[in-house]
Parts: sequence; structure tokens; C-alpha cells
Amino acid sequence: MTQDPLVIFTPSGKRGRFPAGTPVLTAARQLGVDLDSVCGGRGICSKCQITPAYGDFPKHGVHVAEDALSPWNTVEQQYKDKRGIKPGRRLGCQATIQSDVVIDVPPESQVHRQVVRKEASDRAISMDPATRLFLVQVDQPDMHTPTGDLERLERALRSQWGVEAATADPSFLARLQPALRKGGWQVSVAVFRDHHGGPARLIDIWPGLHEGGLYGLAVDLGSTTIAAHLTDLDSGAVVASAGIMNPQIRFGEDLMSRVSYAMMNPGGAEEMTAAVRAALNDLASEIAEQAKIDPALIVETVFVCNPVMHHLLLGIDPVELGQAPFALATAEALRLGAGDLGLTAINPRARIYILPCIAGHVGADAAAVALAEEPQTSEDLVLIVDVGTNAELLLGNKDRVLACSSPTGPAFEGAQISSGQRAAPGAIEAIRIDPETKEPRFRIIGSKFWSDQPGFAKAMARSGITGICGSGIIEAVAEMRIAGLLDESGLIGSAEQTGSARCVPQGRTHAYVIHDGSAEGGPVISVTQGDIRAIQLAKSALYAGARLLMDELGVDHVDRVVLAGAFGAHISSKHAMVLGMIPDAPLDKVSSAGNAAGTGARIALCNIAARAEVERMVRQITKVETAIEPKFQEHFVAANAIPHKTDPFPELARIVTLPQVAFNAGAETGGRRRRRRG
Amino acid sequence: MTQDPLVIFTPSGKRGRFPAGTPVLTAARQLGVDLDSVCGGRGICSKCQITPAYGDFPKHGVHVAEDALSPWNTVEQQYKDKRGIKPGRRLGCQATIQSDVVIDVPPESQVHRQVVRKEASDRAISMDPATRLFLVQVDQPDMHTPTGDLERLERALRSQWGVEAATADPSFLARLQPALRKGGWQVSVAVFRDHHGGPARLIDIWPGLHEGGLYGLAVDLGSTTIAAHLTDLDSGAVVASAGIMNPQIRFGEDLMSRVSYAMMNPGGAEEMTAAVRAALNDLASEIAEQAKIDPALIVETVFVCNPVMHHLLLGIDPVELGQAPFALATAEALRLGAGDLGLTAINPRARIYILPCIAGHVGADAAAVALAEEPQTSEDLVLIVDVGTNAELLLGNKDRVLACSSPTGPAFEGAQISSGQRAAPGAIEAIRIDPETKEPRFRIIGSKFWSDQPGFAKAMARSGITGICGSGIIEAVAEMRIAGLLDESGLIGSAEQTGSARCVPQGRTHAYVIHDGSAEGGPVISVTQGDIRAIQLAKSALYAGARLLMDELGVDHVDRVVLAGAFGAHISSKHAMVLGMIPDAPLDKVSSAGNAAGTGARIALCNIAARAEVERMVRQITKVETAIEPKFQEHFVAANAIPHKTDPFPELARIVTLPQVAFNAGAETGGRRRRRRG
Repeated sequence: MTQDPLVIFTPSGKRGRFPAGTPVLTAARQLGVDLDSVCGGRGICSKCQITPAYGDFPKHGVHVAEDALSPWNTVEQQYKDKRGIKPGRRLGCQATIQSDVVIDVPPESQVHRQVVRKEASDRAISMDPATRLFLVQVDQPDMHTPTGDLERLERALRSQWGVEAATADPSFLARLQPALRKGGWQVSVAVFRDHHGGPARLIDIWPGLHEGGLYGLAVDLGSTTIAAHLTDLDSGAVVASAGIMNPQIRFGEDLMSRVSYAMMNPGGAEEMTAAVRAALNDLASEIAEQAKIDPALIVETVFVCNPVMHHLLLGIDPVELGQAPFALATAEALRLGAGDLGLTAINPRARIYILPCIAGHVGADAAAVALAEEPQTSEDLVLIVDVGTNAELLLGNKDRVLACSSPTGPAFEGAQISSGQRAAPGAIEAIRIDPETKEPRFRIIGSKFWSDQPGFAKAMARSGITGICGSGIIEAVAEMRIAGLLDESGLIGSAEQTGSARCVPQGRTHAYVIHDGSAEGGPVISVTQGDIRAIQLAKSALYAGARLLMDELGVDHVDRVVLAGAFGAHISSKHAMVLGMIPDAPLDKVSSAGNAAGTGARIALCNIAARAEVERMVRQITKVETAIEPKFQEHFVAANAIPHKTDPFPELARIVTLPQVAFNAGAETGGRRRRRRG
Repeated sequence: MTQDPLVIFTPSGKRGRFPAGTPVLTAARQLGVDLDSVCGGRGICSKCQITPAYGDFPKHGVHVAEDALSPWNTVEQQYKDKRGIKPGRRLGCQATIQSDVVIDVPPESQVHRQVVRKEASDRAISMDPATRLFLVQVDQPDMHTPTGDLERLERALRSQWGVEAATADPSFLARLQPALRKGGWQVSVAVFRDHHGGPARLIDIWPGLHEGGLYGLAVDLGSTTIAAHLTDLDSGAVVASAGIMNPQIRFGEDLMSRVSYAMMNPGGAEEMTAAVRAALNDLASEIAEQAKIDPALIVETVFVCNPVMHHLLLGIDPVELGQAPFALATAEALRLGAGDLGLTAINPRARIYILPCIAGHVGADAAAVALAEEPQTSEDLVLIVDVGTNAELLLGNKDRVLACSSPTGPAFEGAQISSGQRAAPGAIEAIRIDPETKEPRFRIIGSKFWSDQPGFAKAMARSGITGICGSGIIEAVAEMRIAGLLDESGLIGSAEQTGSARCVPQGRTHAYVIHDGSAEGGPVISVTQGDIRAIQLAKSALYAGARLLMDELGVDHVDRVVLAGAFGAHISSKHAMVLGMIPDAPLDKVSSAGNAAGTGARIALCNIAARAEVERMVRQITKVETAIEPKFQEHFVAANAIPHKTDPFPELARIVTLPQVAFNAGAETGGRRRRRRG
């Protein structure tokens, strides 16, 4: 008796024997090979395309004959004529196995295909979204055994796709009967499954094969900006991105002023909830228009946000978050419907997932950072800092992860800085000060040229030089420290003390003028003593938070530092360390994770298991509340010096020698001290 | 060693021994005795009141000493002083067992108390509503181990009441934090559990002990009227009832004209959906006002309705129900939220339950009738007829139950009848015709007097005599048949043929004048040949439906008949049988079930197990579609005669002898035939 043909799938290596005539898709399913199909083998969705390989395969011990697969049948040929199939490809549901064969499943035919992230980190997202499309053939109604159309649809989903019990909203039911009849009892159904189990949800239905795609929104709901990525739930590709200002800014620039607004104004919280929901609807409409898709195809949305935004999005008065013990209404991940959040711009049955919060000050955004950066799998001890208006810190490795938040205030974002501004064309984003001449050169957003390069004038003519953004001010202060314009305590020296005419008196203190645009009617951009104090407060808070976590873990150094947040992407590691924002570490161990919170949102959108993972992870994170830790104040004071009063920075010392200057009135001038030591 | 005291609970008879000092509530719980408690033994809800019995109980073999329970403690005494406790009662959570004791649990202290229905049927409703109130003490937040208030509430529900995993809407979360703080971390929570399992739902929350009650609406959503009963979910008492006209009447009097409206007018179905939902909100507000309760305390609503109303309520275009194969969008019971149906007048988190439909023509109203009348438990063969614009029929016993609907049209409700009107003051509701004089006497709605009694004139002066309602026309036609004014074929005789001047010519046929009000400017109320034809069509359809079910079951008689529907309550059994509306049966076996559909709705509202029961029952009912049964037409034609062309009515013959008359032109006059045979 001859054996059945051997089938070997690559790249999985799964193999088995099947009777001649078995469709490739059937073989793949029986072997558990990850081969996609939406139409269930009807030869119309083309998701199951495979590439047979011919010839000798000594590795597998097989020879594949030219006729190892069946000839093209009518269905397959028709599909090819109408839609085209790439050379070498076959439809897995039509081609049948005739003799031993090696079959490659190309990435785009895998359900759980990997999506390589554009960001620095090399972790890929494995596609396994909560909402998937299924084509089913539904039985027609029979007057002799009357059943509802829904019941027959559910039966079809169960028998054709193994989708167990399902629930449907009335608005789905309203679409059901016309779709079934228009599609001749063949329909595409978008089905959502919850990662906590329970019945599947029927989200939407279309006659025949729906080819318009399914989309999800990953939303990073920040205090200042709301950023959204429209993601194709099939390919995982980000098809459009958009960001808008958070309209709640008119109620208060920072979170605590919004909490105050809610406390002081009856109905204030509701007002802010309505504002942010309206903005989200605008954003969804805008992003759908940008991608030229029907917004009703947005069937899922994932939110990451800080606790105050979390509560305001949900319509919960955030007052408890403004006072000890900072109790969240709920810390758990939330699974909601679009209607629960008044999201009318997207599919009315779209499902919402909001990541869990870690604590009253450490929100779903920090949970998303953890999901993206996975400190709990790290071999070495990693400090992850998400720098924003509040900084959230995660410290840990595979043994234990700690989290806290630190009230840095908005200085790092250019707010409360005399020449500060948001990151926008014309803002100084990078600066270098010559230690000898004390003269600055800088770059503005919108130009790749430095101010001493020929191309700069052209960029300047376009936007002007309008101010300093967050990364610019950090560099400016650090460069001033390196150039000896600023002493360890944070005092700016006078022109006499520093030998630079750019150090001009301002009341009883001094300011360093970076650019004087007054001749052209532009602003004078300088760093004032007040600016230095604001940055010192912010960086001390950040450092003190990190130290508190290190205390808790009983360590006095970290192996590596990850700067997250949109802002983190622009901070120069060296300058951050000169400033003493972060603990001392080898410079090549300080990296940027880009918008890690947004990445975490995308991961949770594309992969259902990631939701369970982040929920599990958050439960295991040790929360440290900076507001009640007496040592926080101690660390904060010690961190006021630049880079630090007491903590050594040996790694920093290896690459930068900071001048020993002191500009306070009672002390010798820096120049003299430097001369004496030099 | 002495034994622990023996505790015997009545009426359950459950008994056990407990250490002296055990609270009565604790003993009851351990024995599984049905003793209520909302506050969990804190002595504040008084739901656990019990009555100890003292003295000798030879039946139980115990003597109960005067000090068998502990003396009144402070909590119990305070409760008594403040709120009062009935003489002889104790609080089960405070009184502790000291020696052998017999304890009676009065009905109002039982969770699953029985509510005796006011209706004719003697079946009691056992209280076990889906939504219950729980008082819990919640842990305060702790900054060192931060958790959400919701998570601590859930933990309290779990540990104090055994309520497992719960879900909460954002709008519940918005109420959570203020309630916890106002109640000093003691709150009352309304918790809904689904009879299909899954996590409980948190519906609402109040600081401390909520004493405002929880309510449910049982709604019978008819084509013509919408009736609602506001029910106390604790006691099961109907605290208010209200009914309004279905505003969809303006789109079409009967169901099929509404389906036509939806087919003919784009957006017509949506219009009708909006109209009925607005009416439901009005009704809910009205009934809450009537009962003087906050409408937000309405936390559940149960709907029963026919399939067309079902679809229009849900926002589903009913077009498929207007044409074969009469496919329902869904036949299954629906569990929804108030928001899904736009019910804004009640608690926004209220849960909705809609009973399952049996088939495209046999709706959730028929399912509710089955739930109330329980044909599936009947020993004898029962025919249940819900008479309305469409008649739904159920036939069966404990072995098998069949259902169908029959298109009777609106004649039974007084529509399409020349002098017909809805049941309202002034309408003739009962009539008797003297077989000798052929003179009528009648009663009108609003008066207990017959028209030949002295008190009648007064009632008439109030309302006038305005028309004939449904029960009146049935009696009129039946009485005309008994009095020999109408022959078997349904022809009204002439004055000459009948010997009554009240038989007046009308075109080529005759009409019988019941009342001529023209002298007083009132209407002439008569029964025309056209009216007889309309009633014949209706009653033939009804009878044919019953016969079809009997055929299916292979029987030619039924043991008893139940007339359901608000209208059924007013039909005289004898006249219904003279007319041949229902199969022949002993008159004392024909009963009225009142508004059985409404009763079914109330049962489903008060008892969660009834929901599972009706779903199971409906699946087992055999559906018969009259529209495709060829025999239906045959039965219909044969049933045209009054009472019937071929079927014998032996039970009817025992109490009424119908005159053998025939008034068609070609035949002898009835008078002559009668004389010849007499």
C-alpha cells in the first residue's frame, strides 16, 4: 500500500500526510499551520495564498514533482483573471495535494503575521486583533421550523468557524436582515472576542465578502495633545496618524488645574468630559477622512492616558485624584462600547479597551509604556522614564518592577520658561555653547542646519526664531553648565564672572542671551535665573523619583535608562545626564523609546493576548507613592545641584569635565576658582 | 457533655444545633433557610425579622424557654425605638440562640416570598428578581497598596455577599466615589445577575442603607395599547399601573398596515420606533409620578409584545414579517440595557428583558401567556386563545405544546364593524335578545344596569349609547343566532322572515337595529349583514387555527379552553361557543385568564428562573404556520357557518338549542322549516 502524500509547510516546519485531493487549506488547518482565510475556503477572499516549492529538498527528504498540486481549477482561474495572483502563488483552498509537496506560507497569508515597528525598539507586534472578519453562508428561513435570522447566523458562525455563542446589539439586528438578503445569504461578519472570554460580539455585517477592511484606533490621550494611529486590523499597518490639542487646555494647562476646575465649578467635570469626547469624535472623523475610509469601519479603539484624563474621559469627577490618598474610581482595564464614551464618529458598536492604571498617579499610559518596553522581561536593571507634564518612572527587571510618578511640572515641555514654547517650527531645539568663547550655536525646528551654517538663514526666514522648546531648554542649561556659565548650585554668572557679554543683569540675577532678534522685530531669547530654577525643580523631582525606586529596590545604580514620551525622543542623553535628570549610566545605555505609550496602545490594539499580559503585569508592579515617602523630599533637595550635590556621576565624568565654578555673592568667583584649580 | 441548642425554623422545618450565642441569621444561613437580609447582619435593614415561639412543641419534641433567645441588645433596642418592630418579632441578626428554640420566618422576611396574583389563576409568583440590593462595608483606599474604589467594592461584595466578578458602566463609576465617601464607606448597591450567568452588573449605588426601594416595569406592548405595571422588586407588589395608546396607531391601525408603512416610506420604521420609545418614556415617567417614586429607581423592565412591535421596539425594520417566510431578525430572548432602547426616563443602567418570540407570527406576548398559563404542565389538553387583533393559540399538555397565530383581523375589537367602537363608556358590552319578542336589552360600559332596568337612564344620560365594543358584537351576533334572527350561514332574516320590525332592509340585505338614538340626536346602533360577515371571517380564522393545532396533535376535542387577553376577560363563554369561535367544550371548562401576557411579564420580572423557563419552553413548542398549511383554508371555509358547518357541538347543544332557520332567497323561510320540524 502506498503512503498518502507528505506535506511540509514552511516556515513552521509542520508536516503531515493527507489523502491525495486534500485542499492545502484543509491540510494547514489540521496541522495547526497559521494560514489565513476569511471566506472559509470558497476561493473569494484570497487570504490563503501559498507558494509551492518544486524540486529536491534533501533537508526535508522529499522531491516535489511539478504536478504535486492539482491543476488550476475554474474558481482559482477566475480569481486570477479578475484580481490577479502573484507569480508562483496558488489559492490554498482550491489547490489540492496530489503528491509530496513543500508549501511556503508567505507572511501576508499568516493570521498572526508579525508587524515590524518603525520605532527604535526591535520588538515586533504579532497580529491577533480582538475583532476579525468571517465570511459565512447562512441557512435560509424555513416556515416549518421557524428560527430567527440571528440564530441561523450564529449557527453558521459556530459550524463554519467554531465561533461559540454570540451577542448582538439591537443596532446590529437592524442591519442583519437586509445584509443577509442582499448577500444571497452569504455575509461577512465582524466578530469581537473578549480576552476575558464570554460570548463573542457581533459588531457589523456586510453582504457577501466585505473588502473595505476593519480598522482600529490607538489613542494616546495626553493632557496637552491627543494622538491617534489608525491601524488596519488585518495587516497591522498604521494607515494614518493625526494629533490634535486636548481642548481641556482651556480649563487648565496642567492636570491639577483641571482637577481644581472640577472642584471649583459645579458641572466642571462634565464640561471637560464633553470637550474631550467631542475632540475624539473630531479626531476620528479627521483620521478616517485622511485615510479615505468610512469611519464606521473603525471597530475598535484602545486608549492610554494618565489617571486624570482617564477619569475625565469616562465622565468621572477627578476630584479624588487631587488629594491624598489619590484613590482611582477604578484601576482595572475597561472594556466598553463606543456609546459608553459618546463616540459617535466611529462604528456605533465599536469596542473600546482602556489599559489598566497602575496607581492614582501612574496611569494607563505608564502601563502602556510597560507593555511596549517590557521591563519585567529585562535581564538588566532598567529605568524607564516617561517624561511629560508628570513623569512616570518604572524601574525593574525580570525579578521585580516598581513604578511611581513624579510631579515634574511642565518646565520640561517649555512651559513656565521665559522664552519657552511648544515644539513647533521656529523653536530652538538644540544648542551648543563654545566653552572658550561662550558663544552659542543652535538649531530650530524645521531646519537641519545649525545657526552658524549657511543654510540656516533660509529656514529662519521661513519661521523666525520664536523661542525654546523642551529639549532646547534642557540642552541650553546643560551647555551653560559645561561652558562654566552656570555653577553647580544653578546660579548664572555675571558678564564679569563668566567673561561673556551674553550674561546680562536682570534684576538681582543674570540671564544668558541666546539670540537677540529685536533688530528684526523678533524676540530676545535668553535663559533667565528663573528658568534655571524651574528646570532645577523639574529635574530634581524626576531624579528623586528614580532614587526612591532605587532605594526600594536597594540599588544605587541602574544598568540602563530608557527615555520614553514624544519628548524623550528629542532629549540628548548627554545633556540629560549633565543636568542630573537621570541617574548616572553609560551613555550608550541611555536610549529613547519614542512614544512608548502610543506603541503600547498599538500593541494592545493588534494583539488580544497583550491585553491579558498588561493586566497581569500591572497587578504585579509594586507601586511607590512619592507624596507620602519622607525620603522623597530629602532626595529632591539633594538633586537640586547640577548634576547632583552628593551622588557621584562617574560615567558622566568619563566624557565631560564640568568646570568647578561658583557664582554666589559670598564665594570666590568661578573664574578665580577655576584658575586656581586649573 | 451537653448538646448545643436545637434550632427549628418554620415553615421550612429545617433544623440544626448551634453553639449558644449564634445569631439567628447565621443559623438560618447555614441551614439554607430563606431569611432575607440587605445589610448583612448590621441591624439596620430589619429585613431579617423573625418570630420566636415559646412553650412546648410536642411535634418538634422541644420546650422553648422564655430566655431561649438573648435579651435585646443596644442595636436591636435602638432599631425598635427608632423604627418600631411588630410585637413578638426580633431582629434575626441581633438575637442570639441561648437554648432550644422554634423560630418562625414570616412571609415578608423571606427572600423568595410568594406573591399571590390578583388574577383568576391561583398560581403564586415566587420572588427572586434579577436585581437585588446589598449593603456593604468597603475598605478605604491605602496609598501603600493603591487599588481602585471599584475593586474594593467588588471585594466587599464578594467577601460579604458571595457576589462574584462584577462589571460596571462608566456612569456607575461616576456615582461610585461620592457615594462611598458620603456613606462613610458603607453603601447600598443594586446588583443584577443574568440568568445565563456571567459577571454580575452593578446597577446603582447609594450612601448607607438605601430605603427608597427598587422597582421594575412589566410592559405589555400591544399594537393598540401599551400597559405597564410598576412592581416593587422586594415585595412583588404592583404599586402602580398605567396604560396609554400606542402612538404608532397614526401609522396604521393594525400590524400589517404598519409593516406597509415601513415598506412604503423610507425612514418609516425609524419613525415608528422613535414614536413607541417616546411613548414608553412618557409612560415610565407617568407611572413613577403616580407611585411617587424617583424614576431612576426603576432598575428593570420586562417587555412582552407581538413580533412586529418587538421589531419596531428594537429598531428593526419589520418588512420581513410582512411576507413569507415571516423571518424574525431574532427569536431569542433579549437582555439589553436601557440605553439600547433609548429608555431615558428610567435608570440609565436599568436592564431590559424581552421574552423570546415563538415564531414570525407568534410573539413574546404568546410566550408570556405560556409562562403564565403553563400549558406544558397541564394534565388535560388545554387550548389557550389570546384574542387580539391577531389571535395566538397554544394547544397542549405536559406531553407536547403547539402554537400558531391566526389572522382574525380587528373585528373582535369592534373595528370594521358599522357601529363598532373601542371599549369605552357608552359602548354596548353585553346584549340579550328575547327569542320570542326578538327585543334586545343591553348594558353599556360605565353602568351595571341593563337597559330595561330603572338605573340605566342615568348612566345613559352620562355617556350616551355610542356604539358596540368587541365583546358586545360577539354577544349580539350570538344572541341573534339564538333568537332565530340569523341563520346558520350568517344571513340576517327580513322583518317578514323573522317577525321582527327591527330587521330592516339595507340594500339587498338586512340589518338588526339594537337601539335607535336618532330622536335624541344619537346614533342608530345596528348589526348589519356586513358586520356579520366581518365577525364570521374573524371567528372562522380563529377556529381554523385551533383545528389546525388539533389536527397536528391528532385530536378532535379539547378538555378545556382558556381565553386570554384583556378582551378575553369580557367574552361570554357561551356566546363565544354559539358563534363557533372556539371548539366545543363543557362551559365550566372555558375560563378567562385575564391579561395573561401581562401576568407573564410580571412573572419574568419577579423571578429570574422564570426567564430560563420561558426560554426553554419556547424552544420546545412546536410552531405551526397557518399561512402555509393547505388545510387551514379548508377549516376556515367549514368554520364560516354559525357555529359550524360540519363539526358537532354536543356540549353547546346541552345548554342551547339553536333554531334551524335559513334565510337565503332560494330556501324555504326558517319559520316554515321550524314549524315543520317543531
